[in-house]
Amino acid sequence: MSIMCNNHKSILTRALSVPSAKSPFEQTTIERRDLRPNDILIDIKFCGICHSDIHNAHNDFGNGIFPMVPGHEIVGVVEAVGTEVTKFAFGDRVGVGCFVDSCGECEYCLRGDEQFCTKGVVVVYNSLDYDGNLTYGGFSKKIVVKEDFVVRIPDGLDMDVASPLLCAGITTYSALKHWNAGPGKKVAIVGMGGLGHLAIQFAHAMGAEVTVLSRSMNKKSEALGFGADHYFATSDPATFTALAGRFDLILNTVSANLDVDAYLSMLRVDGTLVNVGLPNEPDKYNVFSLVMSRRSIAGSLVGGIRETQEMLDFAAQHGIAPKIEVIRADQVDEAFERVLRSDVRYRFVIDMSTL
Amino acid sequence: MSIMCNNHKSILTRALSVPSAKSPFEQTTIERRDLRPNDILIDIKFCGICHSDIHNAHNDFGNGIFPMVPGHEIVGVVEAVGTEVTKFAFGDRVGVGCFVDSCGECEYCLRGDEQFCTKGVVVVYNSLDYDGNLTYGGFSKKIVVKEDFVVRIPDGLDMDVASPLLCAGITTYSALKHWNAGPGKKVAIVGMGGLGHLAIQFAHAMGAEVTVLSRSMNKKSEALGFGADHYFATSDPATFTALAGRFDLILNTVSANLDVDAYLSMLRVDGTLVNVGLPNEPDKYNVFSLVMSRRSIAGSLVGGIRETQEMLDFAAQHGIAPKIEVIRADQVDEAFERVLRSDVRYRFVIDMSTL
Repeated sequence: MSIMCNNHKSILTRALSVPSAKSPFEQTTIERRDLRPNDILIDIKFCGICHSDIHNAHNDFGNGIFPMVPGHEIVGVVEAVGTEVTKFAFGDRVGVGCFVDSCGECEYCLRGDEQFCTKGVVVVYNSLDYDGNLTYGGFSKKIVVKEDFVVRIPDGLDMDVASPLLCAGITTYSALKHWNAGPGKKVAIVGMGGLGHLAIQFAHAMGAEVTVLSRSMNKKSEALGFGADHYFATSDPATFTALAGRFDLILNTVSANLDVDAYLSMLRVDGTLVNVGLPNEPDKYNVFSLVMSRRSIAGSLVGGIRETQEMLDFAAQHGIAPKIEVIRADQVDEAFERVLRSDVRYRFVIDMSTL
Repeated sequence: MSIMCNNHKSILTRALSVPSAKSPFEQTTIERRDLRPNDILIDIKFCGICHSDIHNAHNDFGNGIFPMVPGHEIVGVVEAVGTEVTKFAFGDRVGVGCFVDSCGECEYCLRGDEQFCTKGVVVVYNSLDYDGNLTYGGFSKKIVVKEDFVVRIPDGLDMDVASPLLCAGITTYSALKHWNAGPGKKVAIVGMGGLGHLAIQFAHAMGAEVTVLSRSMNKKSEALGFGADHYFATSDPATFTALAGRFDLILNTVSANLDVDAYLSMLRVDGTLVNVGLPNEPDKYNVFSLVMSRRSIAGSLVGGIRETQEMLDFAAQHGIAPKIEVIRADQVDEAFERVLRSDVRYRFVIDMSTL
């Protein structure tokens, strides 16, 4: 239950905060802005943990602002709406993903690709909004967000399960859609973690023939359960010769550096290797690997608000769901460690009723 | 004038041959096969010199077969035709580019992308044909080629000038077409050599806004003469900040390794950096440079026969012509050295009447 402080127009709420890079989480109280006419106050029920939350909390990219409240896979219920809100009402089940504002006027915003906003999108946390205020993410009990950056959770999706779709889901869905995964296409998914296990389900539901490329054979039966048609271990060099020239699209969900040429060799003419993970070191490739079959290497970053809603509706319609482990607020430090050890199948989600 | 050897069904002709890797050229006599029903005998008038001829003659790629007769920008006149030839007649002005046979049955051959033939295209020289015979290129007075791999030189093009279009021309034209250079598109051409100076003309004629990125300002006035709208020196770091996020397409015609991230930073959202040069060392890139604006790095390799004819017709129609220096057969060694010093504006063409 939020505390409305009428005297200075802000809302106090509980949050999990990282005081400085790599320090453990602390339970604290933060302020949210009072509702503007187009804002929604969300009572957060669940928030997923993404590898990038760890990167940010550890300041791996060097741009961390502390204290930091991570979390960009936010699902909850509308608790209050601003005077001019038209899309949502009290009690609606809603979600918020990676960003909470954009200019709304540039060519990218106008076409629904807010993630590429030329003014610069306002990220849900560790970002300054257009008034210069630091944003705080979803490891918290309440959040205030402009209605245009809120999506609706379809009836068929449970709120905890919906949570990882707001980042891991849209990241893989958007890339698969943009590079035309669908009937007649052979798609490989590299890595079967939080992103990979969703990518398999999306690519399969889109009608593509799906091959999983995972380090070992350990996850084979689960991969087939998610809809994969084939499964190969990348620790076996024979995989690369067996699959030479096979794929239209390889979606790489792994954040470690790859032997790019070896992966390119598995692409057909005009095939594309799309990266959604972010390795710390540069990747290397031989231009020959591209030229000889007119191949491409690309990268992709989440998706716009309209596409996020489309993805949620698609997931509900096709029964696509992340496999999650729900944790308490006091288990987040441990969960971070387990993510770093790849000891999660496949996504942690924090139950905010425990905060 | 060819010597027909009826007893063993072959044609003897003069050629410039490299006996072993990096050795000087020798004038020698080689055999061409006697005409099969679908073959054409071409009296070669001119043959261009491409940087890849030097790579092959020096065995830089390690796949050289010696003695080698280079040359894949071949223009001449039809001297004889096989009994079933329908497309060409005695006296026609014709050209032959990088390859002289393909399976004709795979999906790529059927759609006119013979360069990607799954059986493997037969390259005009340093390649084994489907009978296992070594192919010899255009540094020669005669060549025998299957009519399906011969193109027509349009009336508006002189034979010497047409020559470099068969490799440098189609390589740049095909890439520009494939990545949709045209009205409303901002295209950068990196490097203004044999390929680059043609790429400028093609991109301009296709209707794109063309920017040349060359090491120094030396070639600016010539670039504008070829149709460039803008010209920047890549030796000036300010170029990269001034052009940040500018281009839909960057066509890299340079064979040296680039600072890929710096070039990627000049691409708009969804922009592509296309390589047609082949550096010896791997290139490096930061995945961040791709992900943040959904950019791509790609490679492209010549074009199919149908597209080569289309390119020649387009060149004739738009007055596009390589700037060439015609040399004698005894100047090829010197020309190779000058190419390596970048001392050519912009393409050498051998006058085969001097052989």
